[in-house]
Amino acid sequence: MDVTGWPFDHHGSRAGAGSVRRHNLALVLRQVADGEPVSRAAVAARTGLTRATVSSLADELLTTGLLTELAAARGGQGRPANPLQLNRSGPAGLGLEIGVDHVGACVVDLTGTVRATRTVPSPHRTLHPHTGLALVAGLAAEVIAGAGLTVIGATVALPGVVGPDGVLQRAPNLPHWVDVPVSPALSEMLGGPPVAVGNEADLAALAELWFGAPWLTDFLYVSGEIGVGGGIVLHGALFRGAGGRAGELGHVVVDAEGSPCSCGGRGCLEQVAGQEELLRAAGARDVDDLIARRGAEGPAAAVGVAGRALGVALAGAVNLLDVPTVVLGGLYARLGEGLREIVQCELRTRVVARPVEVVLSEPGTGGALRGAAATVVRERLRHP
Amino acid sequence: MDVTGWPFDHHGSRAGAGSVRRHNLALVLRQVADGEPVSRAAVAARTGLTRATVSSLADELLTTGLLTELAAARGGQGRPANPLQLNRSGPAGLGLEIGVDHVGACVVDLTGTVRATRTVPSPHRTLHPHTGLALVAGLAAEVIAGAGLTVIGATVALPGVVGPDGVLQRAPNLPHWVDVPVSPALSEMLGGPPVAVGNEADLAALAELWFGAPWLTDFLYVSGEIGVGGGIVLHGALFRGAGGRAGELGHVVVDAEGSPCSCGGRGCLEQVAGQEELLRAAGARDVDDLIARRGAEGPAAAVGVAGRALGVALAGAVNLLDVPTVVLGGLYARLGEGLREIVQCELRTRVVARPVEVVLSEPGTGGALRGAAATVVRERLRHP
Repeated sequence: MDVTGWPFDHHGSRAGAGSVRRHNLALVLRQVADGEPVSRAAVAARTGLTRATVSSLADELLTTGLLTELAAARGGQGRPANPLQLNRSGPAGLGLEIGVDHVGACVVDLTGTVRATRTVPSPHRTLHPHTGLALVAGLAAEVIAGAGLTVIGATVALPGVVGPDGVLQRAPNLPHWVDVPVSPALSEMLGGPPVAVGNEADLAALAELWFGAPWLTDFLYVSGEIGVGGGIVLHGALFRGAGGRAGELGHVVVDAEGSPCSCGGRGCLEQVAGQEELLRAAGARDVDDLIARRGAEGPAAAVGVAGRALGVALAGAVNLLDVPTVVLGGLYARLGEGLREIVQCELRTRVVARPVEVVLSEPGTGGALRGAAATVVRERLRHP
Repeated sequence: MDVTGWPFDHHGSRAGAGSVRRHNLALVLRQVADGEPVSRAAVAARTGLTRATVSSLADELLTTGLLTELAAARGGQGRPANPLQLNRSGPAGLGLEIGVDHVGACVVDLTGTVRATRTVPSPHRTLHPHTGLALVAGLAAEVIAGAGLTVIGATVALPGVVGPDGVLQRAPNLPHWVDVPVSPALSEMLGGPPVAVGNEADLAALAELWFGAPWLTDFLYVSGEIGVGGGIVLHGALFRGAGGRAGELGHVVVDAEGSPCSCGGRGCLEQVAGQEELLRAAGARDVDDLIARRGAEGPAAAVGVAGRALGVALAGAVNLLDVPTVVLGGLYARLGEGLREIVQCELRTRVVARPVEVVLSEPGTGGALRGAAATVVRERLRHP
């Protein structure tokens, strides 16, 4: 079936034909993006488009730099019949992260592979937001230069509630960051590229979906940082709730009369299982120290307390969302099997509907920074 | 635009034309179902169908008994041009409920109006499931006779986890009800009509969506019974989570070291704010006694404890789902403004993303039983 036919006559309605062509460009691109290098003939067979249509679309995608041909492919006579693949030297995505105590920047190519990345400490609890934004813009320039690719846009991972207009509305751990227009500010500092924003746990969950185990299509991702965040993936897509701010796992209450939380509540999960409380309870200097000594009595007890609190909060979340899998990320992934087992045990007794599996995020998935960068290139691949 | 035209030629592809006609039947029916009696001309104007098509479709809907004409309408010459409305004597839906300590049955007509309803006590913790099913089947026969309408199907509201195959998989408060094939058993007892099953809180949430305040399109409905259930409505539809069993609010943990719960966990919301614990803590004989004496010291203190626990669990749920409204139903709605304020106060301090409004379910919405019955007629109206 050549879908460039109906509903347009052979002279074509320009707007309509353009829209069909764009649809078909995305269709061809998807065949190539989904796996190994693929020939035009195979694309035609899989899509039902004619060979001629595929060749014309592939030429356009080669010209715009989204696709490339294998080096050994050219050289014969006539139309090239050689495998196509995503162009690793083509348009690239910039991921930025403003954490509670760090900033990060990374560039991924069209395949989602990280081509340059850098993270540096930065105390955003005390720094003015403008200083933080300038710092991350500087880091962005560094990784863009390092990657040597053309960046077509950026997404910023933020540790709080983001609005649809690119504003960080509120981040409980960053008291100075209230209604900060992150997108317009960074776009100007970077010289104009489109800049989107996202919650860091949501973007880390997307990284898990795109670069983690292929069977993971429904899960709750837990981001263990200074804040504790949640990113919910249902049926292979990010679940945003009624208003786009779903997944605030860190402020699920695990002890109604517990310590006051930065959010204004008390006894939130973050106050028991967040990085700072965990380090304090374990008597550890920093995360590396905690990881190194996690078998010792004090640290093990602290991890036990945090793990059980995490299990309690996650049991509630799973009872509400009915997800089959929980993915532990960030600090929790680094704490490894010991923590995983504690959480798994709590879920086993506390979840009503079904068995739930707790897994550790694999190191290669890359977290919020890679997820942020990948949203940019994936958007371009969807709308070439 | 007459959508009976394209893509079929004037002789029509029978299967295709049939499918278009079914689509148009539903379209016409929706115009009538959505509000006041409406003329064929108005239906034609709203749908873009021709007057002739609308008249033909309306005739079919009159013949099948889904529509009726206003009594005063007929009598003129030629084609009738008089208002159409849903036929209140047409096909009806049967709602059934098996609660922890009661059974119920109700019949609604095509407009969703309750035409007969009855609820009687029945101790399902000790009764054999077969006895419970026979009891509800008997009650069904009674309300069907009382309503004097033709029932086209039934839905059963159940206080537990239901499978897609009409099985009650597990109800923590009903230890004998494990993997009970409710749909086939009741269908046989009732003489063959299709019988579906649903979670009682989900069906009560749908009743709230369909018969409650029209602005309610995104909310978490809390069903306060012996069990505590949750039904989540997002963007005007029931949210089912990854596996169809979302919303188990009663087993969100509010006190990690609290009392053992029937679900196998401990410190679940239900153990603190469920009907039985609330009556015990208040020293009340039954729900009527509690409602009557809710201003007195002991009962007020007990309601305070339950309300704060409810607020803690709901804050977690709202942080995860980002819903703007919580609807308190069942016993909680009867406890009224006093309980509502306590819950509202907890949510005000504990929800991160946005203000949340707590409202009481209005008595007229009808809860799980009406929601169950209404699913039957709404399904028929969608697929006439």
